[in-house]
Amino acid sequence: MTTNGGKNGKGSLYGIGVGPGDPELLTIRAQRTLQAAAVICFTQLDDGKESYALSVVRDLLEAAEPEFLAITIPSDDNTPINPETWSDAANDIAGHLRHGRDVAFITEGDPMLYSEFYHVLDGVKAMVPDLDVEVVPGVSSVMAAAASSGMPLVTHGQRLTILPKVYGIDDLREAITNSDTTVLMEVDRDLLEALANLESLGLTGKTTYVRQASTSRENVVEDISKLSVEDLDYFSLLIIRR
Amino acid sequence: MTTNGGKNGKGSLYGIGVGPGDPELLTIRAQRTLQAAAVICFTQLDDGKESYALSVVRDLLEAAEPEFLAITIPSDDNTPINPETWSDAANDIAGHLRHGRDVAFITEGDPMLYSEFYHVLDGVKAMVPDLDVEVVPGVSSVMAAAASSGMPLVTHGQRLTILPKVYGIDDLREAITNSDTTVLMEVDRDLLEALANLESLGLTGKTTYVRQASTSRENVVEDISKLSVEDLDYFSLLIIRR
Repeated sequence: MTTNGGKNGKGSLYGIGVGPGDPELLTIRAQRTLQAAAVICFTQLDDGKESYALSVVRDLLEAAEPEFLAITIPSDDNTPINPETWSDAANDIAGHLRHGRDVAFITEGDPMLYSEFYHVLDGVKAMVPDLDVEVVPGVSSVMAAAASSGMPLVTHGQRLTILPKVYGIDDLREAITNSDTTVLMEVDRDLLEALANLESLGLTGKTTYVRQASTSRENVVEDISKLSVEDLDYFSLLIIRR
Repeated sequence: MTTNGGKNGKGSLYGIGVGPGDPELLTIRAQRTLQAAAVICFTQLDDGKESYALSVVRDLLEAAEPEFLAITIPSDDNTPINPETWSDAANDIAGHLRHGRDVAFITEGDPMLYSEFYHVLDGVKAMVPDLDVEVVPGVSSVMAAAASSGMPLVTHGQRLTILPKVYGIDDLREAITNSDTTVLMEVDRDLLEALANLESLGLTGKTTYVRQASTSRENVVEDISKLSVEDLDYFSLLIIRR
């Protein structure tokens, strides 16, 4: 275990984006910060599977031997996360910081785009006066998926909308109306049903499905009519270029 | 000069995002790929200032001594880029690839988000059959600016829209209607005028200006009423959280 100690002997809190999955898509700063942090904090599903963010950086941390702080959250999307989960985690983190230990909260992609970092950040801010926080931005899965597709997301003058979800075809139609490119962050059953109407939406041939961009499980599908329930994946997204 | 040579003895074309400005925000893969490339290609304004993307990676390239291929474009935003600029560049790049040299086209931020990489990509694709292309995604200035602001762009369930520009207050009002967060990629005179109406738009205190995130010239302004014409900067953006 490393002991760091920043200003006033307190540790610093880092929110670190580890990128879309390929460990080589970590930034140099993320790598350096992680190897120096005493404590690595991450969310962990209660189904026992390893944290995705941790799996990306595990090899990198081998020599440093940091302490691990896992925040267990429900694997079932329909079970809400107990607010105490975040306040307990904030409490644990605050304890480490008071003892002069730097804590790095790792998230897949970027910490400011759909990550859970803000849940702990607010709590720790309330507990630790003059908290020293640094956010290390990361490569989002949106950029990684676009890279895998080989096509730009947006070019000069165009508009991009990133959506967490659509609720059927009407919602999808409305979502794509005002943007040149729309990215849907998760391919679920509602989205699959909406996509059955691609032709009526005028989107045939303009839609790309990307699963787990940058990883060994990456899959890029240009013919969306071939997508099926088996292709549903939390780490998948859809790029719709009008 | 390094000579690489991929499949069939031809070089590979790389589109590489070098991140928002801080050289430490390059990915490990970008770093490795750049140090191995025989030719580094970039756009260069005709006012003689160094290419922004090149300035980010210059130190990194010192030992490798690659060949530099500059694509000169007008510094005046109102002067359109001559299409021949891109076809000439594609021709030069194709020449290097045919001689077995890997070419890395560097862009600030990410190659798939408002970059000029696709201008050369299409041209080179047309000239080189079975072109070997790899896009290395990068940290966008959008993520870097959010990191500097200390606030998430979007959290669970929220919508994000990224716009290149607005044309006055009506356009701004329409743009922010359907999104939880709107990012405006460049702060110009039209935007400054629209922002004079922040109060009527209900956005006072919800808008953050970030100039040159992650660099020594970074500036984060929370009180937008203090912005003036002097703050206009090509590498600036505005985050509006409703």
